[in-house]
Amino acid sequence: MPRPNNVIWIMCDQLRHDYLGCAGHPTLKTPNIDAMAQRGVRFSNAYVQSPICGPSRMCSYTGRYMRSHGSHWNGWPLRVGEPTLGDHLAAIGVRNVLVGKTHMAPDLEGMKRLGMTPESIVGVHVAQCGFEPYERDDGLHPTGRPRPKYDAYLRERGYDAVNPWEHWANSGAAADGALQNGWLLVHADKAARIPKEHSETPYMTRRAMDFIAGAEQDGRPWCLHLSYIKPHWPYIAPEPYASMYGAKDVQPAIRSEQEKDDAHPVFAAYMDMRYSKNMARNEAREKVIPAYMGLIRQIDDQIGVLMQFLEGRGLLDSTMIVFTSDHGDYLGDHWMGEKDLFHDQSAKIPLIVVDPSNAADATRGTVCTALVEAIDLAPTFIEVFGGEPPDHILEGRSLLPLLRGETPPDWRKVVFSEYDYSMQDVRLTLNQPISQCRLFMVFDGRWKYIHASGFRPMLYDLQSDPQEFIDRGADPVCAGEIARLQAALFDWALHPKGHVTTSNEKIANYADRQIQLKNGILIGIWDEAELAAIRKKIQT
Amino acid sequence: MPRPNNVIWIMCDQLRHDYLGCAGHPTLKTPNIDAMAQRGVRFSNAYVQSPICGPSRMCSYTGRYMRSHGSHWNGWPLRVGEPTLGDHLAAIGVRNVLVGKTHMAPDLEGMKRLGMTPESIVGVHVAQCGFEPYERDDGLHPTGRPRPKYDAYLRERGYDAVNPWEHWANSGAAADGALQNGWLLVHADKAARIPKEHSETPYMTRRAMDFIAGAEQDGRPWCLHLSYIKPHWPYIAPEPYASMYGAKDVQPAIRSEQEKDDAHPVFAAYMDMRYSKNMARNEAREKVIPAYMGLIRQIDDQIGVLMQFLEGRGLLDSTMIVFTSDHGDYLGDHWMGEKDLFHDQSAKIPLIVVDPSNAADATRGTVCTALVEAIDLAPTFIEVFGGEPPDHILEGRSLLPLLRGETPPDWRKVVFSEYDYSMQDVRLTLNQPISQCRLFMVFDGRWKYIHASGFRPMLYDLQSDPQEFIDRGADPVCAGEIARLQAALFDWALHPKGHVTTSNEKIANYADRQIQLKNGILIGIWDEAELAAIRKKIQT
Repeated sequence: MPRPNNVIWIMCDQLRHDYLGCAGHPTLKTPNIDAMAQRGVRFSNAYVQSPICGPSRMCSYTGRYMRSHGSHWNGWPLRVGEPTLGDHLAAIGVRNVLVGKTHMAPDLEGMKRLGMTPESIVGVHVAQCGFEPYERDDGLHPTGRPRPKYDAYLRERGYDAVNPWEHWANSGAAADGALQNGWLLVHADKAARIPKEHSETPYMTRRAMDFIAGAEQDGRPWCLHLSYIKPHWPYIAPEPYASMYGAKDVQPAIRSEQEKDDAHPVFAAYMDMRYSKNMARNEAREKVIPAYMGLIRQIDDQIGVLMQFLEGRGLLDSTMIVFTSDHGDYLGDHWMGEKDLFHDQSAKIPLIVVDPSNAADATRGTVCTALVEAIDLAPTFIEVFGGEPPDHILEGRSLLPLLRGETPPDWRKVVFSEYDYSMQDVRLTLNQPISQCRLFMVFDGRWKYIHASGFRPMLYDLQSDPQEFIDRGADPVCAGEIARLQAALFDWALHPKGHVTTSNEKIANYADRQIQLKNGILIGIWDEAELAAIRKKIQT
Repeated sequence: MPRPNNVIWIMCDQLRHDYLGCAGHPTLKTPNIDAMAQRGVRFSNAYVQSPICGPSRMCSYTGRYMRSHGSHWNGWPLRVGEPTLGDHLAAIGVRNVLVGKTHMAPDLEGMKRLGMTPESIVGVHVAQCGFEPYERDDGLHPTGRPRPKYDAYLRERGYDAVNPWEHWANSGAAADGALQNGWLLVHADKAARIPKEHSETPYMTRRAMDFIAGAEQDGRPWCLHLSYIKPHWPYIAPEPYASMYGAKDVQPAIRSEQEKDDAHPVFAAYMDMRYSKNMARNEAREKVIPAYMGLIRQIDDQIGVLMQFLEGRGLLDSTMIVFTSDHGDYLGDHWMGEKDLFHDQSAKIPLIVVDPSNAADATRGTVCTALVEAIDLAPTFIEVFGGEPPDHILEGRSLLPLLRGETPPDWRKVVFSEYDYSMQDVRLTLNQPISQCRLFMVFDGRWKYIHASGFRPMLYDLQSDPQEFIDRGADPVCAGEIARLQAALFDWALHPKGHVTTSNEKIANYADRQIQLKNGILIGIWDEAELAAIRKKIQT
């Protein structure tokens, strides 16, 4: 077939790049995801543009770096009018549909200033980050917040409570029936209190299939963002996944005592966070990691269900399928929990793309080591649907050449990622001004340079130190590498794609076709003879 | 009086910093502007954030750098929703009113995407850059473009033509009555074909007075942007201003042969532009500069009229008055015409601020040498009206402390300015990619560093070389200065105010008040005992 008609863009939340069978995990089985890698290309050097949910997703959904879209943290709204993938797809008649999580907060103040209501058609588009929200569910539902549809789903099946999401799907029960709060790491080894088919991953998979079945009537091509909440915490899986993995499957923590000696102040502050200190304990790792693996295994099973469904409807040949994540999880590696810094455990993501077109046949089952960024997906999708990615707005690059066996000679030499810790306790620990709580990663495939505003840089050589144990940021031997990567960051910082209202085509035309003169704006022309000569010249 | 009720923000177009009596011009008389300097503070180190109309104005109207608002060139729309001074003033009940030029182009595509029409109340606000357009007139009106009200004004007085603006107000007539096109430099020594009272400067002054008279009924405080088109080209003045100055008033060109030897490629390309080559000729200077001076003198006279009007209505004591420009004009200095680079002739502007409050009495008649930026005006005005400038959006700093005799110890150490030449022939000459047509100035009061993407930097030492004749950008002796100023630029480039939707107050509260925990998001807590201890702690 000439071109895929549809895209399914599966995103897991907090799934590490190396927790897949095809990525080399020694005991975790992911046969369905591995099969996708066999049918497509697995990218082994894919990085997110910020290793935290909200900003990472806003990068993916806009195809732009964090410094360009301005949403630096969970809950920081993308400003009204910030162009999204949904805008670009709408312009070429493609539906951009959401099932699951986005972590988008609407810019209510900006909407109010522009006289828009969030309930209007345009308002929903803006408030939902350019998605048609078939089912939106941002994944974390503490009591007292707006409730997801999933709550009602559980209630209908008899799982009633003030907060069914927390009470049934994300808690365990002790032998005496007492509730065991799934938010707490100590309970990660318990089973969730619902049968597997009612947990979040299969629920969302079914909602995706509902959408696909319904979309056939509509006829328009679609891009479906199936955005799973798991394996993000609460770390608690239903049976049989809860019991599927155990302490024997927990790999030794990737960390070294050396990391704690004379650590960079920012790294030291993060190692000192509660969640890091807790996750660094072997007791926590032995409870959390098997649950994390079980949740991934459940996702894999559901991807199997989804693929069978697509095959049954004859859609596999016409659908591009992408499998990825929004960032990783330290899981105690580097003495860290969560995902705040740029070690590969955090900033590197799994990325598999199955391109059904014949042009991609030669790359099936291969691993691509090119440096790719999560923001490359938006332009890839636009191109898949036959559109032209607006290159004055999108900062990522289409992956289609790589999927089709070409490596453009000017492919990027470095990837960038950013982080803003102004919302975290680390700001207080380090006593940094809000505007200076910034970290920037530049990685060239070997050297990983991290600029920390107000501090010395960090530097890792992944060739001699693949586990990133040795920070060379203060090593005079590395001054040349630091200067080189700093220059790349400088150049990147100076040239954001800020002029979203004016296309490069228009800009090129202006001088090329002497539009100013043709419009009658005559600057610094001496006399009638010179003017006549110019007019003659520009008319020819 | 405790606080000014109103602001009049007078902006000239293309007025150089040194073409005023109070700034030391040897023969140009500007008694009314000089009197303002006596009543207020004259800033002798004020720089625009881009030395070209549109971008410079968008910086002034948003209080943000060009890299932040994204309007790099005349006619590049400010994106819908970009926060303007008008938004900030509206929030505190102040009218932001325009009489004259803005050079704002509406973001029609962005408005359409958001379902807005330019004719709606919000649409007008957006399309007019946050101004209430009492009279908008962007100053250049070649035939075939939308016509200004001023055309009708001329017609009503019998000055009829297809294009009255060009035919009468901006052309001369030969002895035989033949029209002499005012766009052409050769005719700059002619008189415009209308009596002075019907030319653009007095017309706009009267429109400003009309507004002020009418505003009394309304009662709300106002900020009036009186934005003159002159002394911008077409360089042609009505009598008696046309004959007021002559060749004897033309100062020797500030330039050196050395500048042409081994010139920086970007500088060389600009010296080679038609308008530069024409303006570098003494014959052109002797025609253009007297006309330029006459136009300034006419502005000065009109400011006299306006001040008398304000005095007569008792408004001088309650109105802050600002006099400035959007950039300068090389007028043949440095072998240049126009205003494309960062020599003081181009990037430095006149800036006089009269603050009527008692707190400013001690600074009246003084010259302030602090480094100030045009983007400082927006926060100044917000503060004058009792508002708090939103410091996550505005990149300028209020001038009120300087006006009131304080010099904040953390006042800025460098000023920044930017330029994008992608719309100009220089891009073709230099064969630069569109995204790399970028220049950045960093000036610390002595050293002026210019980063030119893709080229070596330029550097001038204004202490040893006040005329900026010697480019030290390739001088190894200056490597330290270059590194220092480059580091300042790097820091600036990495920290734009991009998160316009999220206030610093909200950010500070989040960690300070442990909002995440209070919202029930429990990250990496081990067990019930730890949770109870945390809850106890955050409740106290």
